[in-house]
Amino acid sequence: MLKLLSSPHCFITPLLNPSRGRLHSIARASSSFTQTSVRSTKMDSESYMFGPYKIDSKEVFYSTRLSYALVNLRPVVPGHILLSAHLNCRFVDLTADETSDIWLTAQKVGQQLESYHKASSLTFAIQDGPQAGQTVPHVHIHILPRKSGDFEKNDEIYDAIDEKEKELNQKLDLDKEKKDRTMEEMAEEAANYRKLFI
Amino acid sequence: MLKLLSSPHCFITPLLNPSRGRLHSIARASSSFTQTSVRSTKMDSESYMFGPYKIDSKEVFYSTRLSYALVNLRPVVPGHILLSAHLNCRFVDLTADETSDIWLTAQKVGQQLESYHKASSLTFAIQDGPQAGQTVPHVHIHILPRKSGDFEKNDEIYDAIDEKEKELNQKLDLDKEKKDRTMEEMAEEAANYRKLFI
Repeated sequence: MLKLLSSPHCFITPLLNPSRGRLHSIARASSSFTQTSVRSTKMDSESYMFGPYKIDSKEVFYSTRLSYALVNLRPVVPGHILLSAHLNCRFVDLTADETSDIWLTAQKVGQQLESYHKASSLTFAIQDGPQAGQTVPHVHIHILPRKSGDFEKNDEIYDAIDEKEKELNQKLDLDKEKKDRTMEEMAEEAANYRKLFI
Repeated sequence: MLKLLSSPHCFITPLLNPSRGRLHSIARASSSFTQTSVRSTKMDSESYMFGPYKIDSKEVFYSTRLSYALVNLRPVVPGHILLSAHLNCRFVDLTADETSDIWLTAQKVGQQLESYHKASSLTFAIQDGPQAGQTVPHVHIHILPRKSGDFEKNDEIYDAIDEKEKELNQKLDLDKEKKDRTMEEMAEEAANYRKLFI
């Protein structure tokens, strides 16, 4: 059963295995956006949904009231992360509060990761809907720190994002043993990034 | 000479040919964002800057206090448009007001163009800095209505964006006679889109 929120297009899907976590509490559009709403101190005790999949809090390194940043199962460049809203819907269906929150967070996260990885540019991309290549039906922004020569042709980075997006969906639906990166590797990366926002 | 605004990274470049228009008036971050700040009625008498280039108001079909939407010199799919801030800087250097404005506008414009072109998804992409493939150093979002099968491989749309981004920079720097689309064609498209926002 889907839990409907204020928009008919946005909902939270139930956990595949509810015993492993609880649904994230969201007060959608009930109060105005504030940048002081970061609640990273609660991160250890929370779980996160990405489409129908539960994301371990160890993979999440930054969170606001309306969005959260997670390390990537198969990053195409160092620091390639996903920034997700808490809802299952399209980007165009987010409220003004949710839209502002996710993009102000994208700026903040992008700047920190660009600096951390000694990069000099950033790629931001949203595949909003299945015909745009989205495989997990949950608003998310790809953020990639970019360096000169990281891809021989700049175009190739988008090919890589698309390929990884497909793999991500397949991998999330399979046993953890089949992931390319271990939870330990991802947790370590997330722990490093978390320190950037203290 | 560059006109500095509140961020040391953001500025307005002067017109290449100042006699052909006047600089756009911007009150940066001086008042809170409102969605009622659309001033499309003034569009005919205004000019717009895109990096160092002047954009004819006929090419612009929607405008807010802090951003404007223009038709594309060489769209890669029908409805592929650019949404630009009024400033020469990187996306990560925009203020909170400017960031919220451009993405709330992206949602609105994207939804209208998706519906107008009978598409079912949208691609949004920012190449934020030269190492990410940006050629015109001016914040802009690519927005592309997407349909099933519009590109044989979804990846190819990003190759096309990158190629067009390079061409755009070259073309803007050359005589109008060398453009693939005429001003009449672009003005007609912009006029059609403008009606969507009345």
